Amino acid sequence: MPHIDLPPGHSPGISGLLIYRPETAHPLRELVEILMRGPSSLTSAEREIIAASVSWWNNCHFCHTSHAAAACAHLGRGPDFIDEIKAGLPNEPLSPKMRALLHIAHQVQRGGKHVTEGDVAQAKTEGATDVEIHDTVLIAAAFCMFNRYVDGLNTWAWPEKEKFMEIGGKMAHEGYMKPYVPVAP
Amino acid sequence: MPHIDLPPGHSPGISGLLIYRPETAHPLRELVEILMRGPSSLTSAEREIIAASVSWWNNCHFCHTSHAAAACAHLGRGPDFIDEIKAGLPNEPLSPKMRALLHIAHQVQRGGKHVTEGDVAQAKTEGATDVEIHDTVLIAAAFCMFNRYVDGLNTWAWPEKEKFMEIGGKMAHEGYMKPYVPVAP
Repeated sequence: MPHIDLPPGHSPGISGLLIYRPETAHPLRELVEILMRGPSSLTSAEREIIAASVSWWNNCHFCHTSHAAAACAHLGRGPDFIDEIKAGLPNEPLSPKMRALLHIAHQVQRGGKHVTEGDVAQAKTEGATDVEIHDTVLIAAAFCMFNRYVDGLNTWAWPEKEKFMEIGGKMAHEGYMKPYVPVAP
Repeated sequence: MPHIDLPPGHSPGISGLLIYRPETAHPLRELVEILMRGPSSLTSAEREIIAASVSWWNNCHFCHTSHAAAACAHLGRGPDFIDEIKAGLPNEPLSPKMRALLHIAHQVQRGGKHVTEGDVAQAKTEGATDVEIHDTVLIAAAFCMFNRYVDGLNTWAWPEKEKFMEIGGKMAHEGYMKPYVPVAP
């Protein structure tokens, strides 16, 4: 049960909180819209994989599964890809640049000071630009916020990953600016 | 030295990053403006103390000292108050409600799932409203983002707390929507 009174039938995870407090919802929606779907040399699928991975490392089921499902929607993959992200994508042909950026994201999740000059040099060697490194750090940092917001107020989520495929599709294809209410709660 | 190329003479901490990437700066500025200075039953000084405390627990010198200096500006205190915040304000007449909210903020800093029903019940017993609990969780979560953004890109900051009194005054009295360039870099 959430730590604060949300109306009966409220939406899962952050969705219910964004409806509860529209003042703070606006910049939070705009931030994730720009980070996940704004102009970038990283694909939206790559950025959703970074977001889903950080959320997994932070043990946030709602954010992990919904953003992993958004990556599925971008890539045309089924829900088993969510488990691949949990495992660190050992069998996926990720670029060395993307592996280096995921490593930086993991360091940020541990704490900002964990990112070393060597971590950044490796990403640059693999072709990462300054803006890609900036955005990776900010995506990882932002999900350290979203994860704590969602779990710090003890919001609900479906246990089954399959149930996240609808919200993941909406996040990927319709974006983050509109309130989300499940079709079948 | 920052991990990415920022222009010579760039502003300290997050200020230089916000100038570097204006697209993401806008929602970040709006979020902190609402959280620190928007309508609330918590004073701006109380909210800056929560922000500065979380930043101290995350070992982020720039965010800790600048937001502690903003609290000083709101309260008309000198820079020694920054050290009081580091120490957990043992000698300040904080309300039991504010102590309970600071405890919730510390739990959020450790991770969202650390916030217990007992932590929230204690805050409610001391008179905290649902919106105050919501905002405390979101402030703490947001500074877990800002701290990682600032340190994950290895931005610079003045070592001396006294040098933060100017930026703290601007944050308190002029707000967060405009770029910051130090008077004496």
